[in-house]
Amino acid sequence: MSHTKIDRAVIVKLREKYRAELYDNVLPFWIKNSPDREFGGYFNCLDRDGRRYDTTKHVWLQGRQVWMMSRIHNELHRPGENSPYLDMARLGAEFLRRHARDGRCVYFSLTREGKPTHLQRKIFSECFYVMALAEYARASDDDSATAEAREMLSHVIAYAKDPSLLGRPSYAHVPPTSNLAVPMILLNLIQEVNGADGTDYADLAAWCVNRMHLHIRPELSLVLETVGVDGNVIDSPEGRLVNPGHAIEAGWFMLAHARRVRDAAMARTAIKIIDWSYDFGWDEKHGGILYFLDSAGYSPVQLEWSMKLWWPHCEALVAFIMAYQETGDDRYFRKFERLTEYSFSKFSDPEFGEWFGYLDRHGEVNQRFKGGPYKGCFHVPRALFLVEKVLGELLAPNLGMQSLDVIDKSQI
Amino acid sequence: MSHTKIDRAVIVKLREKYRAELYDNVLPFWIKNSPDREFGGYFNCLDRDGRRYDTTKHVWLQGRQVWMMSRIHNELHRPGENSPYLDMARLGAEFLRRHARDGRCVYFSLTREGKPTHLQRKIFSECFYVMALAEYARASDDDSATAEAREMLSHVIAYAKDPSLLGRPSYAHVPPTSNLAVPMILLNLIQEVNGADGTDYADLAAWCVNRMHLHIRPELSLVLETVGVDGNVIDSPEGRLVNPGHAIEAGWFMLAHARRVRDAAMARTAIKIIDWSYDFGWDEKHGGILYFLDSAGYSPVQLEWSMKLWWPHCEALVAFIMAYQETGDDRYFRKFERLTEYSFSKFSDPEFGEWFGYLDRHGEVNQRFKGGPYKGCFHVPRALFLVEKVLGELLAPNLGMQSLDVIDKSQI
Repeated sequence: MSHTKIDRAVIVKLREKYRAELYDNVLPFWIKNSPDREFGGYFNCLDRDGRRYDTTKHVWLQGRQVWMMSRIHNELHRPGENSPYLDMARLGAEFLRRHARDGRCVYFSLTREGKPTHLQRKIFSECFYVMALAEYARASDDDSATAEAREMLSHVIAYAKDPSLLGRPSYAHVPPTSNLAVPMILLNLIQEVNGADGTDYADLAAWCVNRMHLHIRPELSLVLETVGVDGNVIDSPEGRLVNPGHAIEAGWFMLAHARRVRDAAMARTAIKIIDWSYDFGWDEKHGGILYFLDSAGYSPVQLEWSMKLWWPHCEALVAFIMAYQETGDDRYFRKFERLTEYSFSKFSDPEFGEWFGYLDRHGEVNQRFKGGPYKGCFHVPRALFLVEKVLGELLAPNLGMQSLDVIDKSQI
Repeated sequence: MSHTKIDRAVIVKLREKYRAELYDNVLPFWIKNSPDREFGGYFNCLDRDGRRYDTTKHVWLQGRQVWMMSRIHNELHRPGENSPYLDMARLGAEFLRRHARDGRCVYFSLTREGKPTHLQRKIFSECFYVMALAEYARASDDDSATAEAREMLSHVIAYAKDPSLLGRPSYAHVPPTSNLAVPMILLNLIQEVNGADGTDYADLAAWCVNRMHLHIRPELSLVLETVGVDGNVIDSPEGRLVNPGHAIEAGWFMLAHARRVRDAAMARTAIKIIDWSYDFGWDEKHGGILYFLDSAGYSPVQLEWSMKLWWPHCEALVAFIMAYQETGDDRYFRKFERLTEYSFSKFSDPEFGEWFGYLDRHGEVNQRFKGGPYKGCFHVPRALFLVEKVLGELLAPNLGMQSLDVIDKSQI
């Protein structure tokens, strides 16, 4: 535990850096290159310079961009007020509502015109649909979008609690497993649907936290992606898989929830899993956070395990500045600074805007595009937005988000 | 066209190198580490030193190892004669026949005991099942295995000609596509089921060659993995995808078929696609064959595109020594030599046997294991075996496989 005070001027300068990156480098890339004014929605497959290399519309990214544009609108404008962000959000929200749903399911990808091309038997398209409409409802002052978000969330909850509804084949002799992604995204969705002050879905949130605890393994000082639903560790590549960026994201979702429910023990756990996962995932040789690891030290079977992806770094930026805000422990601020240095120098593209998404282990750009089937207007601007807010709160500690002073800081 | 004669001593030395690698370094790794004497079949997830890190039995690799062990037996022994290779082949063949089938389908993966854990809606498990039983039938002198191979092949053919039978969802507005893997693997299966002299399935072979021609694009000097079934090029990452190793493998399958049917034009085409694909896929910066490329120069969306995998190099070794044998053009021999130098120095592990499978772009080992969900006892020993045979034929040109002297060599 260390409490050297961080110089106020350092925080002021960082805040300015994050604000400029968000509003001058990242958001303009999407506002300029992504809108499809002819068919609605966004082009999300955009090359380094913003030119599109595919017209497929991936629904995760349509939903996430609606959320992001709505969130920025809600930060800067009143509900329903004209703004370029609300205009962008509407373009995507209307496209989604018109084309992406098929009853209780949401497609994974659509043609440019909005015809379905792929349906996954997973819950994530549905989740990003919920997230999009929940925030868009606040931006546009449209209660019908709130209602639709809550209705779709009810289907997501049903799928999460009984995955057999998704129609994936299962075998009686294969014990059911829990995937970390499901409780963590649901916990985040609850926060999104509730908005700043809501307290609905409390039982579901408790279920999510309990599920997440199955994945948190103090005996390993690690978070495992997949465990048995009875909490047993599975001795296979799947059961030993660690995704540090994912665990760090789970950590800050849990920390945000702990603040809402004022649970200091939960906040401590959240910060612990952030710290474990970063320490396990940081590549001492080349810098950056590795994508996948095996808890027992075997080579992960995922070919891309050693790559450095933008989103784990985005999640870690948010997580460590929140951990610092929560505890005042400057070790977290140092990790935040190290991550800022790595991320801005390796991922950010000052020439054409936005961040590269995929570096090889050595830190060289492996994919030059800015948008693809799994990268869009989301992780980078969300991280910049959230970090900038926390930095602002650190400068004005009596405003905005509060840390849980109930935490016994000596125990962290 | 160049016809500098390759020194006989060079070929003698290379043949010895390949033979030693096969019989002293590669096969012993599998014979020592893979057999499961308790439940049958093979452990195929083996770490660098041969220790297993997962007991899942991946059916592609069970089938391929049965094929390989049977093939070696058939080279060295009489049908049904006792040999360690036949013993190994039997261990896998009996396990497959007992556990891997469910009617017309073959599972993708099984537990150690043989219970199913995954069924793919693709045809490849079925293909490797056919390949395994066809060669095993010759090794064991078991006609029932031949019959079963042919019966399963009939299901594969039905799936290949009408993919809707696999139960994958499709949309009326999405035009059907052709995947290069399907006709090329079928063409190879026909050769495997027919054995050395058979001529069955001639119509199917013609269908395969026609389908492969949809993928061969002289206007690009490339082979595309996915095209419309009417032969149109699809302008998307999927439609622009080039997998040089796969195209090179298709090339030598086609060259082997051209020899059987004595079609010189087809042989020329086969060698052309080998050469195109190698030239497009060779990484001038770091050496080795890249895994995926985009025909228009965009970054492939596959994260692992820049990696160097063992199997494209194995396929290229076979393809170029066959191209040299066919044409006498020493440019092919030089490429074969360059590939030999890269592959033996980067992939081979003299300490523990077998080859590493996955290098990063720089040529560093990215996955240390020797066997995994997609790597087993197949590509390395098959390539070593086939190359050693061709080198032997080059030393005794009147024995064994014949080249098509009808080729007008000036046109290549």
